[in-house]
Amino acid sequence: MNENDKQIVGEKAAEFVKDGMVVGLGTGSTVLYTIKRLGQLVQEGLNIKGIPTSIQTEKLAKEVGIQLVNFSKIEQIDIAIDGADEINPNFELIKGGGGALLREKIIAKAAKTFIVVADPTKMVERLGKFRLPVEVIPFGMEMTMKHIKAIGLSPELRLNGATPFITDNGNYIFDCSIPNHIQTEIIERELNLIPGVVENGLFVGMTDLVITLDKNGDVEILSK
Amino acid sequence: MNENDKQIVGEKAAEFVKDGMVVGLGTGSTVLYTIKRLGQLVQEGLNIKGIPTSIQTEKLAKEVGIQLVNFSKIEQIDIAIDGADEINPNFELIKGGGGALLREKIIAKAAKTFIVVADPTKMVERLGKFRLPVEVIPFGMEMTMKHIKAIGLSPELRLNGATPFITDNGNYIFDCSIPNHIQTEIIERELNLIPGVVENGLFVGMTDLVITLDKNGDVEILSK
Repeated sequence: MNENDKQIVGEKAAEFVKDGMVVGLGTGSTVLYTIKRLGQLVQEGLNIKGIPTSIQTEKLAKEVGIQLVNFSKIEQIDIAIDGADEINPNFELIKGGGGALLREKIIAKAAKTFIVVADPTKMVERLGKFRLPVEVIPFGMEMTMKHIKAIGLSPELRLNGATPFITDNGNYIFDCSIPNHIQTEIIERELNLIPGVVENGLFVGMTDLVITLDKNGDVEILSK
Repeated sequence: MNENDKQIVGEKAAEFVKDGMVVGLGTGSTVLYTIKRLGQLVQEGLNIKGIPTSIQTEKLAKEVGIQLVNFSKIEQIDIAIDGADEINPNFELIKGGGGALLREKIIAKAAKTFIVVADPTKMVERLGKFRLPVEVIPFGMEMTMKHIKAIGLSPELRLNGATPFITDNGNYIFDCSIPNHIQTEIIERELNLIPGVVENGLFVGMTDLVITLDKNGDVEILSK
């Protein structure tokens, strides 16, 4: 997806944000354009409060003038907008390539409406070409890896150079290959039952709208 | 349970530890006596490697001369011995009053044999008089609390004086009242599906043996 396409999709999502809303702000190269556009709208008088999913997004939101609010101060999130690494026809996602999956999932689940912005290459028939990120507690991670293998996945510790990659929450990430025959609901449930697994990058039953481009390059808004 | 009773139960558990075993060492006032007894046996020539569930236990094990091993260096745990806050007739436990539930659960799940040492007052018909500890990520904890309430539990943030209690993994604990009509399997599954919940203090399907005292004060070993 070239920058212009990302900009079209990202800016389209900003149209769903209305005056007075609390807005979950995702992380990534497409939602970047949503945030920039929201900054323009705020300059023109739009009154919103943002909740960032990462330090990177927090910084950007401040730069463009979006007022941020602490998660503890709000009753609900009206809308959240974020990208995805893969989307299947049931609107199930794999997310977390950037390592912020836990905060992204907390915010997506808390939002009344969750909008995903994505280029057409992210739309897949089956999830799993992109490896599933799984956030794990460092303590006992070798044993946690064994338990994950036992349910049929192939985990690999994500590295940052020669040392483990560390999430915002101080945890590690396993990137897991998924065999074709395992259903996403089963993977999610089984993973969550393993002590040491904090969260996984499967987003099931959360997505309300997908904003993408059709074959002609026009904006396409998909809902279930 | 008086100290003498705790000593009888705790020391009994040490008999299940055999030469060459890797042993998960629990935390608490009963398993304390198991660890001390294992220390004596090591002085007499028993060759074991210990994996502690807490910093407190690590310190004690070193004092009594038990060789410790890093979790990353072992292939499996042969036996783990730990206490519990409540045990029901199905050998389901509530644990985590001390705040070490995650490490305790990782080690209990990894062990081939998991032995619980407990006085008779811990044996209950229904779990839930003791509130269920749930370990949560600090980020978004107000929203996580709402999701937990939505499945019917009543969570309360555990405090250490005026500030939140912090676990060994840098997280918070919610102590949750459980209404009578909710099944433990459902609670465990629903809790694990909430992003922001790291782990809960329900130990289902893990316990192999319970060592306790009968009405006459004699050691009783229960197996399923």
